[in-house]
Amino acid sequence: MTSVLIVGGGGMIGQKLALSYSDHETVSLLDVAFPEHSIVNANKILGSVSDASIMAKSLNNLPDTIFYLASVVSGEAEDDFSKGWDINIQAFWSFLSQIRDQYLESNGQYKPRVIFTSSIAVFGSPFPKKISDDFLTAPRTSYGAQKACCELMLNDFVRKGFCEGVAIRLPTICVRPGKPNLAASSFFSGIIREPLNGLKANLPVSTDVRHWHASPRAAVGFLRHAESLHVTTLPFNSALNMPGLSCTVEEQIEALRSIAGNDVVRLIDLHPDEKIIEIVKGWPQNFDTKIALELGFSAESSFEDIIKIYIEDDLQNNVFKN
Amino acid sequence: MTSVLIVGGGGMIGQKLALSYSDHETVSLLDVAFPEHSIVNANKILGSVSDASIMAKSLNNLPDTIFYLASVVSGEAEDDFSKGWDINIQAFWSFLSQIRDQYLESNGQYKPRVIFTSSIAVFGSPFPKKISDDFLTAPRTSYGAQKACCELMLNDFVRKGFCEGVAIRLPTICVRPGKPNLAASSFFSGIIREPLNGLKANLPVSTDVRHWHASPRAAVGFLRHAESLHVTTLPFNSALNMPGLSCTVEEQIEALRSIAGNDVVRLIDLHPDEKIIEIVKGWPQNFDTKIALELGFSAESSFEDIIKIYIEDDLQNNVFKN
Repeated sequence: MTSVLIVGGGGMIGQKLALSYSDHETVSLLDVAFPEHSIVNANKILGSVSDASIMAKSLNNLPDTIFYLASVVSGEAEDDFSKGWDINIQAFWSFLSQIRDQYLESNGQYKPRVIFTSSIAVFGSPFPKKISDDFLTAPRTSYGAQKACCELMLNDFVRKGFCEGVAIRLPTICVRPGKPNLAASSFFSGIIREPLNGLKANLPVSTDVRHWHASPRAAVGFLRHAESLHVTTLPFNSALNMPGLSCTVEEQIEALRSIAGNDVVRLIDLHPDEKIIEIVKGWPQNFDTKIALELGFSAESSFEDIIKIYIEDDLQNNVFKN
Repeated sequence: MTSVLIVGGGGMIGQKLALSYSDHETVSLLDVAFPEHSIVNANKILGSVSDASIMAKSLNNLPDTIFYLASVVSGEAEDDFSKGWDINIQAFWSFLSQIRDQYLESNGQYKPRVIFTSSIAVFGSPFPKKISDDFLTAPRTSYGAQKACCELMLNDFVRKGFCEGVAIRLPTICVRPGKPNLAASSFFSGIIREPLNGLKANLPVSTDVRHWHASPRAAVGFLRHAESLHVTTLPFNSALNMPGLSCTVEEQIEALRSIAGNDVVRLIDLHPDEKIIEIVKGWPQNFDTKIALELGFSAESSFEDIIKIYIEDDLQNNVFKN
């Protein structure tokens, strides 16, 4: 029987990931908070990743797979420099050290697979038209720098044989259900989600901004696929750019119009926000994800599909509705 | 009057760097040990970079420039995983945090320039024929991963305005005076230095191994040039590949023969060492250092020059002689 730990299991992706497992599998979630009306049936551990004793407790049953999703998001990491580095780096380091201790104590018998959610924020401008798998990581945000450091750490633990590992560089996840969060990318979901829920939405950047998207369903698919890959197929560089959809804000809006009509689109207001504009300028727009595609990872090919997935999985299902 | 702190000032480069300053400048050295017969006239602080109170003491007089050279070397970082990460990352992080505290406490009045010695070990194979300035950092050693993380940290502190900063990716420094050290690259110097001192030398790799070299004199030149660059000329990505000389071990040996003769060359014995061979395979061989050259950094253009510099600066001078 597979046993799985989801660090950051109270978050949106963590909850959806937990739902993807059958009742025959043991799923534990570690997080500082859990949704009040969660339909997820799993062992919940309440606490912070920066608390080594809570982490030790979470690793106590020697999970086969550990998804490490916990993170201070990009906007918050930019505003609170110390908190971002403390949680996004130091806690991950302490986690990896505990994995290594278990590996050494068990004489190599315990060697879990660690699947870490990284981000396309590890890349910084100037960008080529399409970012290839060997593009350099020169981030222009604290969040991106922290994710890039974690990738380097994980890769070194993997190289030394203390665990198996994959770092999944997620596209911006869209449409995120629930409330807006502190991520600078929050509006990419907000301009779809809020109107579909009859609410006004702010667009802080111009409509010609191009960005790289995948649905929450695709994100869960990436993580489960990373779990299923045979160890011999894992590449030496464990940080992988995931497939996604490159589209402009205008294309997002036109997809919304085609699905929900003009009245819904009219709920979007343009309120330029210089801080968001500046952060988004430093973000990639398009990728050539050759390695991930060859490994069998897949995502949506139209923004209409991304909206339909939100309607099917969240708006109708209602679990994360506003 | 300029005030300078050299963290790792007891090491070979640290000592030579200190000697490059005039008596009118205040130079402090922090290290766990200093050479017994040093001719360097500087304020010595004995202690480890991992001791926050020693670091605080070192920063007490608010140095204008801080050279951060302290590091567990590549071979040792590979053998002692915990020590490598502790010293090479955690101590550097703690140092940067203290710089930031000083910046915040002084309301931005104190903003030193941090010059960090990184390494070409941040790069991992497969390599192009010449590594360009935008080649990705995908290291294949713990030492390389640690240096790459430090670059990301420093760059984020610089981006946020807490300090100025440059990370100098040194070529392999050759000819190192003194005794062999635990760096896997130690033999590149040993095969020149030992024979010139009448001693036998081991060559652990084959003579067709190509590598990237610069003299200690060039290294001091890089560091002083990084100190002198006007803040407006510093590039956003503060990690810079330094110029150097690409040559094979055979070319090194022929340069030695042309300067010192056959009898000296005969002191080199080939003793293949699989561990060293494996590490060196993952190292770069040649670079196109456009950005650094445009910024005015320079190095040697022949291995004969590199040997002559060793003879002038160290063999005759005797400070670091075996």
